[in-house]
Amino acid sequence: MIFKKRTHTCGELRASDVGKVVTLNGWVDRRRDLGGLIFIDLRDRYGKTQVVFSPQHNSQAYQVAKELKSEFVISVTGRVERRPKGAENPSLPTGEIDILADEVQILSKSETPPFLIEDDLNVSEELRLKYRYLDLRRPVMQSNLITRHRMAQVVRRYFDENGFIEIETSFLVKSTPEGARDFLVPSRLHPGKFYALPQSPQLYKQILMVAGFDKYFQIVRCFRDEDLRADRQPEFTQIDVEMSFVTEEDVFNIVEGLIFRLMKEIKGIEIQLPFPRIPYVEAIEKYGTDKPDLRFDLEIVNATDIFKTTEFKIFREAIENGGVICGLNLPGCANFSRKQIDELTNFAKDLGASGLVHFKVGNGEVESPVAKYFTKISLQKLKEKMNSKDGDLIVLISDQPQKVYSILGNLRLEMGRRLNLIDEEQFKFAWIVDFPLLEWDEEEKRWVSVHHPFTSPKLEDLHLLDTDPGKVRARAYDLVLNGNEIAGGSIRIHDAELQQKIFKLLGISEDEARKKFGFLLEAFKYGAPPHGGIAFGFDRLVMLFTGMKSIRDVIAFPKTSSALSLMDEAPSEVDPKQLDELHIQVKR
Amino acid sequence: MIFKKRTHTCGELRASDVGKVVTLNGWVDRRRDLGGLIFIDLRDRYGKTQVVFSPQHNSQAYQVAKELKSEFVISVTGRVERRPKGAENPSLPTGEIDILADEVQILSKSETPPFLIEDDLNVSEELRLKYRYLDLRRPVMQSNLITRHRMAQVVRRYFDENGFIEIETSFLVKSTPEGARDFLVPSRLHPGKFYALPQSPQLYKQILMVAGFDKYFQIVRCFRDEDLRADRQPEFTQIDVEMSFVTEEDVFNIVEGLIFRLMKEIKGIEIQLPFPRIPYVEAIEKYGTDKPDLRFDLEIVNATDIFKTTEFKIFREAIENGGVICGLNLPGCANFSRKQIDELTNFAKDLGASGLVHFKVGNGEVESPVAKYFTKISLQKLKEKMNSKDGDLIVLISDQPQKVYSILGNLRLEMGRRLNLIDEEQFKFAWIVDFPLLEWDEEEKRWVSVHHPFTSPKLEDLHLLDTDPGKVRARAYDLVLNGNEIAGGSIRIHDAELQQKIFKLLGISEDEARKKFGFLLEAFKYGAPPHGGIAFGFDRLVMLFTGMKSIRDVIAFPKTSSALSLMDEAPSEVDPKQLDELHIQVKR
Repeated sequence: MIFKKRTHTCGELRASDVGKVVTLNGWVDRRRDLGGLIFIDLRDRYGKTQVVFSPQHNSQAYQVAKELKSEFVISVTGRVERRPKGAENPSLPTGEIDILADEVQILSKSETPPFLIEDDLNVSEELRLKYRYLDLRRPVMQSNLITRHRMAQVVRRYFDENGFIEIETSFLVKSTPEGARDFLVPSRLHPGKFYALPQSPQLYKQILMVAGFDKYFQIVRCFRDEDLRADRQPEFTQIDVEMSFVTEEDVFNIVEGLIFRLMKEIKGIEIQLPFPRIPYVEAIEKYGTDKPDLRFDLEIVNATDIFKTTEFKIFREAIENGGVICGLNLPGCANFSRKQIDELTNFAKDLGASGLVHFKVGNGEVESPVAKYFTKISLQKLKEKMNSKDGDLIVLISDQPQKVYSILGNLRLEMGRRLNLIDEEQFKFAWIVDFPLLEWDEEEKRWVSVHHPFTSPKLEDLHLLDTDPGKVRARAYDLVLNGNEIAGGSIRIHDAELQQKIFKLLGISEDEARKKFGFLLEAFKYGAPPHGGIAFGFDRLVMLFTGMKSIRDVIAFPKTSSALSLMDEAPSEVDPKQLDELHIQVKR
Repeated sequence: MIFKKRTHTCGELRASDVGKVVTLNGWVDRRRDLGGLIFIDLRDRYGKTQVVFSPQHNSQAYQVAKELKSEFVISVTGRVERRPKGAENPSLPTGEIDILADEVQILSKSETPPFLIEDDLNVSEELRLKYRYLDLRRPVMQSNLITRHRMAQVVRRYFDENGFIEIETSFLVKSTPEGARDFLVPSRLHPGKFYALPQSPQLYKQILMVAGFDKYFQIVRCFRDEDLRADRQPEFTQIDVEMSFVTEEDVFNIVEGLIFRLMKEIKGIEIQLPFPRIPYVEAIEKYGTDKPDLRFDLEIVNATDIFKTTEFKIFREAIENGGVICGLNLPGCANFSRKQIDELTNFAKDLGASGLVHFKVGNGEVESPVAKYFTKISLQKLKEKMNSKDGDLIVLISDQPQKVYSILGNLRLEMGRRLNLIDEEQFKFAWIVDFPLLEWDEEEKRWVSVHHPFTSPKLEDLHLLDTDPGKVRARAYDLVLNGNEIAGGSIRIHDAELQQKIFKLLGISEDEARKKFGFLLEAFKYGAPPHGGIAFGFDRLVMLFTGMKSIRDVIAFPKTSSALSLMDEAPSEVDPKQLDELHIQVKR
């Protein structure tokens, strides 16, 4: 069909265009028949424009318009008119005008769609994913993907301006069964052998540093065959960065500059630099997590000191067993009812607390059902330590430190939400630094890397590698935003000997290391520069910038939590001939 | 190790910096011991700087320098000096200065590399690929990947400025066994089912048009499990483009603008727009190929008319059998020796010609061993037709048209090279249009798509679909550059009925179509806009812009022709546990 091409988009015409004869192409968003006229809202990516069909003005066009239904694709030609007084739509940029149709062509018809194309949609996500092409017509989804595009453009321009080169690494790589589970790709030319899809270009970006590229970045797809949690996808996008001849501060500077630019260009906000640097231990002790939400205070307070000699058995025993007494001061919650306090207690118990002790502060006094077990002095000290004011409620938990921090971290978030302490418009970034290098895996009875085995230990902790590996801090860092980890990285080991030592600590034999990472170790023999980098979860970053609750809303074709693509029905069965060629068969 | 960070790169210092104390980090490119001094060329991505170690100036640094070997990574601090008169190196931007070293730190040692880091390298490509991190240190390879980065940046900026959105499509998609062979990815969560890696985002970009994104692009990795020809890779990068509400000219305009920008920003050349549009049939008849090299003329001339009634049996029989007599006029080749003409003849015979008839033009006369079979008039007509001048050599071939064009096309290229008619500095772009929609597959005894089954037929040829499908021209187009196809695309079918009809012609049953492309056909039911697009082979484009002979020289980590990655040794055997989890086993 030869069709009349648009002269303007559906978001473009204004009162200043009145009188022009224009052609628009787009989708029928809505049709109303009113007072003998037919009104069509014509929609495209750029907006909506009202088109009016009048039998008096052009009966032929009017006759065609009578056939129009939602989601028909049409080409309309007509004159731009100013809408009558009172008929303007101030919520629409094109709301001052409409088009009086002279001619209309139906370019493509539509069956009745399974759901309406509108932002407030009340259908299952399954239906949205199956008909993703319709879901993506909704203005909110279009806006999400446009923002994603703009963010990627800003990222690329920023790194380019700062001397970074985007280098494409391979997708068909060697399987290295460290870390998550690989997706495998059987080789046709090499029977019994497999490629893996990269979990990240980690080894390859380090190779690029050895190759002298100095400053590398890439926005790149990565793959992990994990059981999917709500906010994970089997394929996801990373902003991957690596730099040579740098220390932590160089990475921080580059990343802070990037975030500043993104916040300014995408959100129109000029944020404060530098970001706070919070040591891992401090984050755990203050916020009960290594990804604290810093939009509100409500910090965890350690009151163990106060209760060292208490008669309150639960506290005393906890302390004797190496535990701690920590708590939160909940502002203005002294008037909590019995029921509300029970709720809090149950919340803590669900997280594994054996109990929750509470104290109400009023008239300078500290009251509690268990007040009798404490001296006046210790209660006053508690009030001071917690920085409590009249009307506040203090809650305390006693147990092993890790458990206490974790429970209070969760309680902190919960109360932050309940007490409306979180300003949703704020973006609070922070670096978490000084992570432990290793953690003990009870199951496997061995040390495992907290970050990955190429992360450099802190130079001042090197001597602990032999004596107390658990105490060694890593030159690793995470960037957190509003309670989400959005990036993580480290300064890498660039010394083959130190790398061997770490492998040994991790119980990775020389043979195993050679098999898995041989080419990187080999590369290190030919002059490796000191280097380090970072990787961002781009999907999550876009989600936080667009204010979405799920990364699936910022990915064009996401998969379900069971890794299904509902639209194209992947994965699917394939022709047995295909498997034959790949030298594999399905195991029933 | 705490190291002294660079204050400048190795390509940065000039005479105006003399007197400054600087620190450089980089690789030892070359060491020379001369007159009691040690000279080091220090190299990084940005250039080379000469460092001088003098035992008189600083004996400690000198002692360390004595240990230095090629590819050691060092940090050097010293004062910038003007080189003595006569010792400048005008071929180096830093050639006016050197650094008198006060201090040197070895950051990383290097074994003797298996080859030198220099542009003119005479080692096997296998060795280069195995030690890719060393190969990539060579300035030419760094420059190639930097150019690739710059080209990608230009492409992205251009499309962004023109209202296109880059949208990331999925890598784990449905296997659609049309076209090339898929790489498959077994699903762990869905036993016996497989994802495919996309051969191109063709279906998904069309879905994005149905979703209303209007203008899409993506620089995206694609995968084809084909037996690799010299210039192919199992994974390759495409610039993928799709637009709604457009005709061919809109696609041409956008692409021509892109090429103009790339040529200007990367090569510094302002090219002429628009590009010539050459119908497929004309390309075949003039150049013997649908990807003509237009840097030189030497067009094929059809002389059949002249010989319709000839007594020369070979020609007459060829014409009677539906064949043609075509040839080339080789300028200035009348003095070719017997041997040279035999060579030409053998070249043509190797390509399948039964023979080659030649005519020498001199003193206005046309001479030939077979001249006696032709009338004077026909020989004069031949000379006119071929536009021959004194000193030229005419060669003619007779056979079925396709064969004649193909042989002469190859001969044309060969003679273009031999006669030095090709200006290597030129970039000659052209559109090839009006491709046939279908071609008859003799083996499978059915029509197959020349482009792909979503390509729209030309509207004026629609009536031929039922009567003479082979005659139907497609709304398809290729962009060619200097004899290479660099992009191909088409206006798509957006009408479900027409699509069904084409499937039927291709012998694809409704059931099969639903299984393979069901989601696209389903999508077309809900209002599909007219749309079309194009895809560039980005690797080849970069290769042509950098003047390389192989796409492997513009890909960071390419695979060999048997799809091996020599550096990381992918593909490799994997843990049987991994296969168990994927419900597959290797078939021995």
